[in-house]
Amino acid sequence: MSLLVQKFGGTSVGDADRIRAVADHIARTRRNGDDVVVVVSAMGKTTDDLLRLAGDVSQAQPPRELDMLLTAGERVSMALLVMALADQGVDAVSFTGSQAGIITDSTHTKAKIVEVRGDRLRDAMQADRVPVVAGFQGVSVERDITTLGRGGSDTTAVALAAALGADVCEIYTDVSGVFSADPRIVPEARRLGRVSFEEMLDIAASGGRVLALRSVEFARNHRVPLHVRSSFTWEPGTWIVEEDAAMEQAVVTAVTHDTSEAKVTVTGVPDRPGIAATLFRALADRHVNVDTIVQNVSAHGATDISFTVPRDDLAHSLDVAGALLPEIGAAEVQSDDDIAKVSLVGAGMRTHPGVSATMFETLAAHDINIEMISTSAIRISCVVRAGRVEEAVRALHQAFELGP
Amino acid sequence: MSLLVQKFGGTSVGDADRIRAVADHIARTRRNGDDVVVVVSAMGKTTDDLLRLAGDVSQAQPPRELDMLLTAGERVSMALLVMALADQGVDAVSFTGSQAGIITDSTHTKAKIVEVRGDRLRDAMQADRVPVVAGFQGVSVERDITTLGRGGSDTTAVALAAALGADVCEIYTDVSGVFSADPRIVPEARRLGRVSFEEMLDIAASGGRVLALRSVEFARNHRVPLHVRSSFTWEPGTWIVEEDAAMEQAVVTAVTHDTSEAKVTVTGVPDRPGIAATLFRALADRHVNVDTIVQNVSAHGATDISFTVPRDDLAHSLDVAGALLPEIGAAEVQSDDDIAKVSLVGAGMRTHPGVSATMFETLAAHDINIEMISTSAIRISCVVRAGRVEEAVRALHQAFELGP
Repeated sequence: MSLLVQKFGGTSVGDADRIRAVADHIARTRRNGDDVVVVVSAMGKTTDDLLRLAGDVSQAQPPRELDMLLTAGERVSMALLVMALADQGVDAVSFTGSQAGIITDSTHTKAKIVEVRGDRLRDAMQADRVPVVAGFQGVSVERDITTLGRGGSDTTAVALAAALGADVCEIYTDVSGVFSADPRIVPEARRLGRVSFEEMLDIAASGGRVLALRSVEFARNHRVPLHVRSSFTWEPGTWIVEEDAAMEQAVVTAVTHDTSEAKVTVTGVPDRPGIAATLFRALADRHVNVDTIVQNVSAHGATDISFTVPRDDLAHSLDVAGALLPEIGAAEVQSDDDIAKVSLVGAGMRTHPGVSATMFETLAAHDINIEMISTSAIRISCVVRAGRVEEAVRALHQAFELGP
Repeated sequence: MSLLVQKFGGTSVGDADRIRAVADHIARTRRNGDDVVVVVSAMGKTTDDLLRLAGDVSQAQPPRELDMLLTAGERVSMALLVMALADQGVDAVSFTGSQAGIITDSTHTKAKIVEVRGDRLRDAMQADRVPVVAGFQGVSVERDITTLGRGGSDTTAVALAAALGADVCEIYTDVSGVFSADPRIVPEARRLGRVSFEEMLDIAASGGRVLALRSVEFARNHRVPLHVRSSFTWEPGTWIVEEDAAMEQAVVTAVTHDTSEAKVTVTGVPDRPGIAATLFRALADRHVNVDTIVQNVSAHGATDISFTVPRDDLAHSLDVAGALLPEIGAAEVQSDDDIAKVSLVGAGMRTHPGVSATMFETLAAHDINIEMISTSAIRISCVVRAGRVEEAVRALHQAFELGP
């Protein structure tokens, strides 16, 4: 008998039929003799609808109230799921983030979990009831309702799996797992059977949209095995587990791409210590997530610094950098939102130094210009023109023979 | 400087425009120097929509989960209202029923308030912030989310007004007050300026839909003055206050009617003690709200007992009464859902014994047959054919000169 945490995303509970299908699956899991704790997101586009309504009502949107508003979504989906489970003869009970003991800090709209109490969940399981927990939400130590931000329901699921000592955290979604590249771009992309936490971190960080980076980090830190799978086919998907010797060691595991970023370049930066620190501290203080950073070779005592940021943060970043120009003595700030990033991820890269050379050659053979390069131990990323990124993904997928 | 509790019903916050209008009114109240605690219902038809969704998903609808589901509604409206207030420069903060300290028993879907703590509301007011509280909801001593049932938001408002020692509880709605009869039926119906708690109780109990009976009882018991008024015209409406000598003592204050009930008749009931007790105890145990009860004169040792119940409870009531037939030795159970009740309410009736005679004469003059009669100190109700009730209301409104 195992303890499973099963998390169902917005499309998995998108309408009455989907909710009944999920209830049916949970009932089957129970009949198999396993214990289950369920985590649900809000139905389909509920969150977007609520945000639109907020925009209609008001300019000012205090973050505390945004959280109060958005947490209505999971109440609906979890109550409906418990009702559907009752129809299946499964005794279940819903818990808000607060009732489930998800204690967070007070950073409304992107709170961090500081503690998972979970007493009521344990009591429910003791009484042979299936707890159905609202994803994405928690309660601060000041007793205010908080939300965990993007990917928050995955984080809830992983945090509960860790706190309850679950054998696996199953993430049900509308795709059937993690692929060697985006199947919409590379039709022959292969579903990966097993991926290490480290690879998954780099896949998530470089544009893989299946799991939020944060939930993967949490899972790795707490050694919670993840299983990403489809709530439409119910077939086994991709396991994300600790790397072990028995694991298939492909040099490259996946090609990922990300079209959500923009590039900022600060030109004529004086070549003296502390300048970069000033700039990136200011950006961090404004909660801008800077990704790739490249600093050119210094010429005549001045250099250029380029970095990428989420496109949503571009205006923000330009303000911050622009305001700092006098202080750091730089010339000007330029921006470019017509870029995309293509990356190779694979634990095997560590021991195969030729990977980057092959990558650059492949892109060169397709006449795709590389504008920025960044690397980690198991990832190489290149920034290219947005219009060329799909061709780059296909070329690399073929060059590294990632297909079936 | 006064402390006002202002409650806004579903139509008052039905869309983004209405929510902004409500925020504007609250801002004006604040500029007048008054303190305000706001109570809101769910937007417009939200509750109906959620119930429909529950029906699509499931047959079994555990009451605890129904409450979890429905309480999503007020979260949305209150968060949006606080956002709209922020746009007006009013510092407000939303509280769920639980956060506001509305402690209830555990009767899901129709919980009773057992205690109002309200510490967080007092703290917010101390900090010069306007508390915006979710109506209709509370939390049980077992820490489960509960709802207060029909008219629950009015009850929340009155309970808070009592707990916080408010000077008045303003109930904003889509009508401009309490009328001498339903204006849709009697165009010349007059808006009443002041009504006593006792009269309002009988108006609510006999079909007046402006306020739920329960909230009026609560207001009377805690001596909270109510002011029912329109959130569309913002004009002064009807005050519901303690009866005093200075009050205008019309013999009859209002004609009310109720088309939501059905009649059950148990025939051939043996004329011996305890039969009625058995029947009505069984109905009470099934939570059927029996209204008018009439027992005919006994003939040949057997009698008929008729009573009215909400039409929704009719099938239920027939089951209960039918199952008891052998035990009580009665002949059969009949039902009739084509009835309506017309009532006269007025504190002045106590000292004017001719009212019932005039009422019966008026109905007779219109050839309207009276099928059941019941009276209280300040109310007389007659059950008539449903198809004749509007004519009865108009005739009585005219006979007692209730128009302007």
